[in-house]
Amino acid sequence: MEKIRTIGYGASGSLIGGKTLEPIVFERDQPKADEVLIDVLYCGVCHSDVHQVANDWKNTIYPCVPGHEIVGKVISAGASVTKFRTGDIVGVGCMIDSCKHCSACLDGEEQFCEGPAGQTMTYNGYWKPDGTDFNTFGGYSTTLVAQEKFVMQIPENLEISAVAPILCAGVTTYSPLKHFGVKAGHKVAVAGIGGLGHMGVKIAKAMGATVTAITTQEEKRGPALALDADEVLISEDKDAMNAAAATFDFILITIPESFDINQYIPLMRRRGAIVTVGLLGPYKSATNNMDVAKFSSSVGGSMIGGTVETQEVLDFCAEHQILPDVQMIDIKNINEAFEKIKDEEVRFRYVIDMASLKR
Amino acid sequence: MEKIRTIGYGASGSLIGGKTLEPIVFERDQPKADEVLIDVLYCGVCHSDVHQVANDWKNTIYPCVPGHEIVGKVISAGASVTKFRTGDIVGVGCMIDSCKHCSACLDGEEQFCEGPAGQTMTYNGYWKPDGTDFNTFGGYSTTLVAQEKFVMQIPENLEISAVAPILCAGVTTYSPLKHFGVKAGHKVAVAGIGGLGHMGVKIAKAMGATVTAITTQEEKRGPALALDADEVLISEDKDAMNAAAATFDFILITIPESFDINQYIPLMRRRGAIVTVGLLGPYKSATNNMDVAKFSSSVGGSMIGGTVETQEVLDFCAEHQILPDVQMIDIKNINEAFEKIKDEEVRFRYVIDMASLKR
Repeated sequence: MEKIRTIGYGASGSLIGGKTLEPIVFERDQPKADEVLIDVLYCGVCHSDVHQVANDWKNTIYPCVPGHEIVGKVISAGASVTKFRTGDIVGVGCMIDSCKHCSACLDGEEQFCEGPAGQTMTYNGYWKPDGTDFNTFGGYSTTLVAQEKFVMQIPENLEISAVAPILCAGVTTYSPLKHFGVKAGHKVAVAGIGGLGHMGVKIAKAMGATVTAITTQEEKRGPALALDADEVLISEDKDAMNAAAATFDFILITIPESFDINQYIPLMRRRGAIVTVGLLGPYKSATNNMDVAKFSSSVGGSMIGGTVETQEVLDFCAEHQILPDVQMIDIKNINEAFEKIKDEEVRFRYVIDMASLKR
Repeated sequence: MEKIRTIGYGASGSLIGGKTLEPIVFERDQPKADEVLIDVLYCGVCHSDVHQVANDWKNTIYPCVPGHEIVGKVISAGASVTKFRTGDIVGVGCMIDSCKHCSACLDGEEQFCEGPAGQTMTYNGYWKPDGTDFNTFGGYSTTLVAQEKFVMQIPENLEISAVAPILCAGVTTYSPLKHFGVKAGHKVAVAGIGGLGHMGVKIAKAMGATVTAITTQEEKRGPALALDADEVLISEDKDAMNAAAATFDFILITIPESFDINQYIPLMRRRGAIVTVGLLGPYKSATNNMDVAKFSSSVGGSMIGGTVETQEVLDFCAEHQILPDVQMIDIKNINEAFEKIKDEEVRFRYVIDMASLKR
């Protein structure tokens, strides 16, 4: 069957200029019986996209076409697909397939797929679920194909030009907040107020918690306050940090680079928890278990969310009318956006208007 | 009112021989209206006793009379005490009092007391609940006085000569196992098979879990198997550790000194947890959040348990007929026992027959 000609924006990985994004034409297979072919309308720009293109995690396969916060319109659905029809507005997040049979997949937690090759990531995915070689291309492109379980329904009352970041930044922050059981009466802190952190603040607020935004410097107080946070705590202010000791039930850390975890541990109340998302490496210091054990607390990590939680967070955001703060860009400005994300200048989410790739 | 002459065994802290235990005579105040005076029958020997006498945590007040795994008989109870009568067999653990009014105390989690001076520890307690200076003397003595809330009922069907270690080793391991929700179907590992670890194995088994004892060397396999553990894993055996990757829902670590936490993290399954009890300092290495986040797991610590959980674990042990493995000693052999604990030769709990102090 004829392949699907797709225009994308990707990095070639070649020695000269290989880590900037440029137009790239490739072909996708026609959707199988249980797959959905999507016309990509919008794609969020995640910090992971920047890391992956730069090969920061030493596992990038080039050419690399990033993008895993995808909103689009169903072009066609395979014969066995019942959930979607042509024209439906849908979303795809960090995964497009998995074994679908292991206990994790049966629980809708496909990010922990125990199948022979694990879950297939939306881009830079190495393997198909059966273990055959592959290199998946993400949503910085005109079309996408995903297994139907990994295609989300976008609730009608969510503005589709802003919804894309919920598919990664949303579920990544929602999952740990939900698993801790954040609710009214809880004091929650969110450290790192970027693409992930600003969603964490909004979701924790909607769960009923009192939310403190933690940012490094006094000069970032304004932008942090501009969010929905009830309070702002400056982590460089030692007196303020001491005064906040033992006050938080839950601390969500979204700082994208290594930091001193022992700075945050004393902020937890009894039976409290810290969860760090997005840090894919060691902390700067060895955890002092004296401070952790003192309040029978814990320091955890969390990785995205599965199909169940991804649909849940979309529905949760619809119910509470939460949307990411986004800035729409044309695909031709993507390299500039990457630079700004690297410089940590961004306290919102860039979303690519994919119509700009079709012009 | 006349004070209560008490014979104890304590460390003077003087320069010559001050960190070995010797007979020491002191006076206790008569019990107040809400306090209970206890004739100490048995006292467990905890690794903390060894640390505290040696001033390993740099907070020891001398003279130091240790002991916080206490079983005795009620001599008399204050006027307002309704729970106990003369002759009752009772237990006292790590605390003898607290503010009793803060949210932690109201929850029966007095180990996190938020009162002006926090909880009053059974020995080496600095302050009374109102903040006045104090130095509490523990259960290596003929008598003890404790506030009634901190006095536990010893279920009738528990052998009183072996029950003492449940008051600290028991509740310290029970609390994190309970909070994780360990149950039938869970795979649990217990690392470090000493006074705490052997109780952890017994309690996790009684909760219905399949339990693996983790010990360092092949030569310790025999003693570990002699416990109720279903399997033994040798942590120095890299192949065995790799084969056990991603298999445990919960890992209780009772290793009493700093170690490399990153060795244990990959053993956790998705949404798993490690809880380290007894380590009052930093790990040997900085936690790699890549491995923690990969399975949305966590690395926590836990400190003893409050009055609610202490009574709970006593009742749980009675229900499941669990008793610590103990070796009874005379008080005159206490310094020798301390040496053996320091050398990590002990895979059970010493209990002092306090009659030996009265002879």
